[in-house]
Amino acid sequence: MAMRRVHYENPKMVVGCLVEHDNKVLLCRRKIEPAYGLWTLPAGYLEVGESTAEGASRETLEEACADVEIVSPFAQLDIPLIGQSYIIFRARLKTPNFSPGPESLECALFALDDIPFDSLAFSSIIVTLRMYTEDVRSGSIKFHYCTINKRLGASPSDLRSFDIDNHIAV
Amino acid sequence: MAMRRVHYENPKMVVGCLVEHDNKVLLCRRKIEPAYGLWTLPAGYLEVGESTAEGASRETLEEACADVEIVSPFAQLDIPLIGQSYIIFRARLKTPNFSPGPESLECALFALDDIPFDSLAFSSIIVTLRMYTEDVRSGSIKFHYCTINKRLGASPSDLRSFDIDNHIAV
Repeated sequence: MAMRRVHYENPKMVVGCLVEHDNKVLLCRRKIEPAYGLWTLPAGYLEVGESTAEGASRETLEEACADVEIVSPFAQLDIPLIGQSYIIFRARLKTPNFSPGPESLECALFALDDIPFDSLAFSSIIVTLRMYTEDVRSGSIKFHYCTINKRLGASPSDLRSFDIDNHIAV
Repeated sequence: MAMRRVHYENPKMVVGCLVEHDNKVLLCRRKIEPAYGLWTLPAGYLEVGESTAEGASRETLEEACADVEIVSPFAQLDIPLIGQSYIIFRARLKTPNFSPGPESLECALFALDDIPFDSLAFSSIIVTLRMYTEDVRSGSIKFHYCTINKRLGASPSDLRSFDIDNHIAV
C-alpha cells in the first residue's frame, strides 16, 4: 500500500440507491445546486463510519424520506476527471412511502419508458439508468463497472459529451 | 447530494488486483509497515485522476512489477470502522513477468491450496482470497459486496476477530 506520495489527494465515493417498486424506479428532483430542478437518483457522499450500503440508504432517507432495504450492488462508475466514484445499489422500499426531503423539490416513481432522460442531473445518473433499463429489458440485471470520461473540449454543463470506457458487466 | 456536513471526512478507496495465472494467484510479501513480512494482494490508495481499474493496475506494477490487464470487478469490501473501501479486480498478466517492487520483499504465484492464510497482511485480503477460493472451487466466480466489521474488544493486531456482514454475491 503506497503511502509515500506527497501531493496525495483523496477521490470521493458517491453512494446512492436505485429503488425499485412495482416495475418503477424512484427519482428525486433537486432543490439544490448544481443541477437544480433536474432529476437524480438519491445519492451523496459517503461518510466515515458507514458502509457504502448504509450511506446509500441514508441518502435515500434524507432525499426521499424513503426507508429502503439494499437488494444488491448494481454499478460502480468511476469519473477520474473529477475524482469521484459512484457506487449504486438496487434497493426496495420497506414501506411504500416516500416524500421529498429538504434537498428535493419532489420525488416520484417512474416506469422505465417514462424516465426523463432529457432532464437528468448528472452523466452518472444517465449511465446508470441507461444500463438498468437495458438490463431489465434483456431480462438479466447485472453488476456494471465502467469509467465515465468527459470528451475533450466539452463544456462542464454539457452532460451528454462523455464516453463510457472499460465497461464490464458481470 | 448532501454537502452541508461540517465535520465531513472522506473515506478512502483502496484498489488492488487479484492476478490469475495458471490457476494461481499473485501475492506480494510486504517490505513496509504495517504488516511487514506478511503477504498481500498488490493494492493501495486510489489517486485523483485515475479510475479504480487504472489504480489497481498501477499498484500491481509498483508492487509486483507486473503489467496486467483488468478482467472484471471481483469484490468491494467496506471497512467502516477505519473509513476504507477495498475495490478488487481480477486481472491477468500481459507477459508472464513479475518481480518485487521497492515495497515488496518477494512476489510469488500461489496455487489456491497453498495460499498462506496464516500469514496474510489484512483482514480484507483474507476475506477476498477466501471468497475467491470458494468461487473457483464452486465453478462460478461472482462479484462480491460485503462489510468487514471488527469484533468488539478485538485488538488491532488480531486480524481474525472480524465479522463479514451484508455479504451479497451477484
